[in-house]
Amino acid sequence: MNHVVRDPDFERRVRDSFARQQFMATLGAVLELVRPGEVLIALPFSAALTQQHGFLHAGVVTSVIDSACGYAALSLMEPGTGVMSVEFKVNLLAPAAGNRFVATGRVVKAGRTLSVCHGKLRAVQVDGEVLVAVLQGTMMAVRDRDGVND
Amino acid sequence: MNHVVRDPDFERRVRDSFARQQFMATLGAVLELVRPGEVLIALPFSAALTQQHGFLHAGVVTSVIDSACGYAALSLMEPGTGVMSVEFKVNLLAPAAGNRFVATGRVVKAGRTLSVCHGKLRAVQVDGEVLVAVLQGTMMAVRDRDGVND
Amino acid sequence: MNHVVRDPDFERRVRDSFARQQFMATLGAVLELVRPGEVLIALPFSAALTQQHGFLHAGVVTSVIDSACGYAALSLMEPGTGVMSVEFKVNLLAPAAGNRFVATGRVVKAGRTLSVCHGKLRAVQVDGEVLVAVLQGTMMAVRDRDGVND
Amino acid sequence: MNHVVRDPDFERRVRDSFARQQFMATLGAVLELVRPGEVLIALPFSAALTQQHGFLHAGVVTSVIDSACGYAALSLMEPGTGVMSVEFKVNLLAPAAGNRFVATGRVVKAGRTLSVCHGKLRAVQVDGEVLVAVLQGTMMAVRDRDGVND
Repeated sequence: MNHVVRDPDFERRVRDSFARQQFMATLGAVLELVRPGEVLIALPFSAALTQQHGFLHAGVVTSVIDSACGYAALSLMEPGTGVMSVEFKVNLLAPAAGNRFVATGRVVKAGRTLSVCHGKLRAVQVDGEVLVAVLQGTMMAVRDRDGVND
Repeated sequence: MNHVVRDPDFERRVRDSFARQQFMATLGAVLELVRPGEVLIALPFSAALTQQHGFLHAGVVTSVIDSACGYAALSLMEPGTGVMSVEFKVNLLAPAAGNRFVATGRVVKAGRTLSVCHGKLRAVQVDGEVLVAVLQGTMMAVRDRDGVND
Repeated sequence: MNHVVRDPDFERRVRDSFARQQFMATLGAVLELVRPGEVLIALPFSAALTQQHGFLHAGVVTSVIDSACGYAALSLMEPGTGVMSVEFKVNLLAPAAGNRFVATGRVVKAGRTLSVCHGKLRAVQVDGEVLVAVLQGTMMAVRDRDGVND
Repeated sequence: MNHVVRDPDFERRVRDSFARQQFMATLGAVLELVRPGEVLIALPFSAALTQQHGFLHAGVVTSVIDSACGYAALSLMEPGTGVMSVEFKVNLLAPAAGNRFVATGRVVKAGRTLSVCHGKLRAVQVDGEVLVAVLQGTMMAVRDRDGVND
């Protein structure tokens, strides 16, 4: 998909904003790649993030895919615009087992106010990759709100 | 709604399982109430859980509602059954601002394998409560898997 | 829930718009009740609306709940505003078997542009009612578009 | 994606089942393509299917994507298995305007009981195609129910 870039400084804006998401640091998540309409976030396994069976909690899975999608949407917004999640839906396909996970967010349709995204999380395991979850959701451009430009 | 209780020891089972969800401890979440088909989880605000604007990250919001719904579903399952999230959809209604948050999970329909739940998160603010998010999702009973009974 | 009514003529506006939804006539759906933030639509069974096992098609179930939610949202919008569905999520709880079905749409949060709704469909059967489906979705107010005021 | 085919006669089974969905005939929908894990359904515009602004009703959009996804899932199930929709989420990206629409359903993960699918609907317009909606949902294999094998 070819997306229109409205902010030539989009990568710096996304990286600065990601650095302000304290929850990403709490999770140990790392911003891997920022392209127009596409963002990748990596997450190493940590026992502190698990549910009762020792897999990553579904909320952790959702968190990194949501951030990847939100920043994929932000990468296409004009300067001075902030991004917030409106809604998302997550299907969990396999237990989040592995040493390392990679979340991808991609913009399906970039609108002036609402952008629709697809996201996913893959688990990197010894013998290959497993698709853990897919997300479909909506991100909103927030304008004219003091201090919100990311 | 009147639910059939299949495990008289359901509250202990839910509380023990919650205690094994290390991610709930990481968030600082506390299991407040366990009733047949209904669970409440409280979460104090912490800067470590925020997104770029200083509100709780949408993934944190989702995490506690998801756990509340999962345990609401588990509370109605027979002994020896585990619970896993199949899918959920979250609508974010207001920024998650406040000192304290309460997530509620309720079973709408308890099936033998799939249970559908409604959840929500309210923010406790100085001047009252605000509804932050609503969730609609599916939880699955997992049987005959070694070591999975919660 | 107490909703603010911005258009005293909301019921007529909803009823006129419903009458223009030709698809509701195709289904045989009838607008039963219009209250601020709440709409009921009734649908008699018809073989023309079935899937392969003789139940109402999930798309039919969705259609009447979606219209109920859309009009519940429209009932709270100011004059000159149109309504469109942004997204919805439907969980199917039981086969849509019965002689008559009632869809309910209710506004959970009415925003200036986006409104979040809960909907459901109940089947009226010989021995009582069965909850067939629940919906959680977002409706959008459309302004300043020629000819769109419903 | 490479899918395992468990029923060599899958295309005939899907086509026979589609022919029994009376609602597809009511809509005027046509089964265009059946491949392992992928189904296309075409729908010509009809005023009988419209909402209040003259576009296809969101429920119609959902109906054909849902059938496409259900049959994509059925195409990978073993003989004697039926398919039912568990849940789906639809994001509406553009008004459903056009003379002809094509719904696609694809299996993302085929499980023994639950299959997760992605679907979409494109509108064929004079000057090209427009992506109208995307769907993410779950289909269930139904076994051991008399008369349900499609």
